[in-house]
Amino acid sequence: MTEEVRMQQQPGLTYAQAGVNIDAGEELVRRIKPLVRKTFNDRVLTDIGGFGGLFDARFPAMKFPVLVSSTDGVGTKIKVAIEANKHDTVGQDLVNHCVNDILVCGARPLFFLDYFASGKLDVDVGEAVIAGFVKACSENQCALIGGETAEMPGMYAEKDYDLAGTIVGVVERDRMFRRESVSEGDVLIGLPSTGLHTNGYSLARKALLSRYTLDAAPSELHGATIADALLRVHRSYLSPVARLLERFEPGKEIRALSHITGGGIVGNTSRVLGERLALAIDWQAWQRPPIFDLIQEAGMVPEDDMRRAFNLGIGLILIVPKVCEQAITHALQEIGERPITIGAIVRA
Amino acid sequence: MTEEVRMQQQPGLTYAQAGVNIDAGEELVRRIKPLVRKTFNDRVLTDIGGFGGLFDARFPAMKFPVLVSSTDGVGTKIKVAIEANKHDTVGQDLVNHCVNDILVCGARPLFFLDYFASGKLDVDVGEAVIAGFVKACSENQCALIGGETAEMPGMYAEKDYDLAGTIVGVVERDRMFRRESVSEGDVLIGLPSTGLHTNGYSLARKALLSRYTLDAAPSELHGATIADALLRVHRSYLSPVARLLERFEPGKEIRALSHITGGGIVGNTSRVLGERLALAIDWQAWQRPPIFDLIQEAGMVPEDDMRRAFNLGIGLILIVPKVCEQAITHALQEIGERPITIGAIVRA
Repeated sequence: MTEEVRMQQQPGLTYAQAGVNIDAGEELVRRIKPLVRKTFNDRVLTDIGGFGGLFDARFPAMKFPVLVSSTDGVGTKIKVAIEANKHDTVGQDLVNHCVNDILVCGARPLFFLDYFASGKLDVDVGEAVIAGFVKACSENQCALIGGETAEMPGMYAEKDYDLAGTIVGVVERDRMFRRESVSEGDVLIGLPSTGLHTNGYSLARKALLSRYTLDAAPSELHGATIADALLRVHRSYLSPVARLLERFEPGKEIRALSHITGGGIVGNTSRVLGERLALAIDWQAWQRPPIFDLIQEAGMVPEDDMRRAFNLGIGLILIVPKVCEQAITHALQEIGERPITIGAIVRA
Repeated sequence: MTEEVRMQQQPGLTYAQAGVNIDAGEELVRRIKPLVRKTFNDRVLTDIGGFGGLFDARFPAMKFPVLVSSTDGVGTKIKVAIEANKHDTVGQDLVNHCVNDILVCGARPLFFLDYFASGKLDVDVGEAVIAGFVKACSENQCALIGGETAEMPGMYAEKDYDLAGTIVGVVERDRMFRRESVSEGDVLIGLPSTGLHTNGYSLARKALLSRYTLDAAPSELHGATIADALLRVHRSYLSPVARLLERFEPGKEIRALSHITGGGIVGNTSRVLGERLALAIDWQAWQRPPIFDLIQEAGMVPEDDMRRAFNLGIGLILIVPKVCEQAITHALQEIGERPITIGAIVRA
């Protein structure tokens, strides 16, 4: 076909008619640029809109810097956000989830990149989601240096969207937590979760929505709605853990950490145990937040499935030698945390 | 509720009944472990299944190492893969796309992380997809150090899935391409694409599938089917560009590179131009692969939309000073490439 023929032919199917609105994508980038730039620091060597995000890789104060990275999503928590039409928290959930995933290796965050895919790009929704990324990135001293916005008609329903995020952080090799250091007799100190965090939502929704609407406010929730309880932001444990690491040596006084995600307390904490060790959890040691009892009652969910699907109120576990238990518990209480000893390491 | 009551209650809704099969997820991890480990090198300090991927961040041979990162998806190319039930190429598409995105900053890949979300996890499909990641990571000397597999019933149709990927690479700051170096009179050398790469699929599907089935083999495709042509793997330009960089100085003899993705030749190449510069493209300079003419004819797609949605046969553009055009063209031909001068930089 010659240039002339191409230009003369009657307009037919356009890119916009195929469901992809490049202008909406550009409008979203225009709106979020000033937000995203707020997360930048002097190690960010990039501007928004280039092909790649640039970050200073010199670590002059470290002997052996190790990059620690993790990718995650927020699971079907996103369906709750979409159904409740509340989009400013799921971005925070995702960043904080990723922060915790590298924190349990001992790493502090450097930068984050997001993937945002929707059936039809709604610029307002996109802006709210990305504002959530920005808020949590700022809170965790993490630069939001890249992202992809995809419009995928036919893959996602028009109002649906999915998110994925990737974090990269750094840790001194000698300051990493080490599963080899975990020993029989060590104590498990749990830190409370804010709710379901980002796991178990398929089960939670199926159980709860068979009995309640999202805006129902059963008395057990003390004034909060089901949506409020389900959308509570996955907390970041960076601040308390960073404070502890100023006083306690990783690998010795704090043996290892476990972020309680899919798989629950046992599934996740088992990952940091050597072969001959096991967990002895005292499941009565703490009070479960009421949302978990609501889920269990509404769905008649077997206890095993509750334990496998949910954090049940414990979002992060520190494994510490028995001799350090009191000092670490006190140190956590001093900074306003509510640590709970929930079990110990035993011989398998 | 006490422990006893919890344990005694009749089994009700389980996690599996809610559509999440933890066992399938674990089976997938078991199958892919040996594959993924093939991509590791001595800079990878991790094993699979930990919370974070670990990578040696020391760059002793570099003066000022810069990390370059990018996140991307494959758009609705994935719908073609799903409809054609061919899952071993989309992972390659995604890795190669990401490799090219950081290559245009001058960076070589270090590591990659993937996100794989499905309505219902099919272990065979997941294994094929991840085998694609592994193949392309190996080809690009890139370690696959992390990933997330999410099962999201209600978000994705049962057989649907989506992918996102994040790459991190490194470049010496002095060896980065620089948009400031692009000057009036510079020449645009295009390298052929293998097909649509990963852009314009919503338009391509809507246009083509109104006339053809995926297994139709119109004579214009010389024996290939529509599915074959649409699923052709997005190529990585790492190898030819790395070879060029052994002989030509980035920022001087090769001013800048442009990876032709969403937005097309003009949309992407404009990103590396200063304010007073523009592109003069000779749209007749090369022969478009037949798949683009099929799309345009089937959908009566206006030429403007073709140019905005597709690479039209040019996957990477090198911007080089006129005096280097011949030497760089010859160097590319010597390594089996088919470079085409497709235009120049002019005053805006």
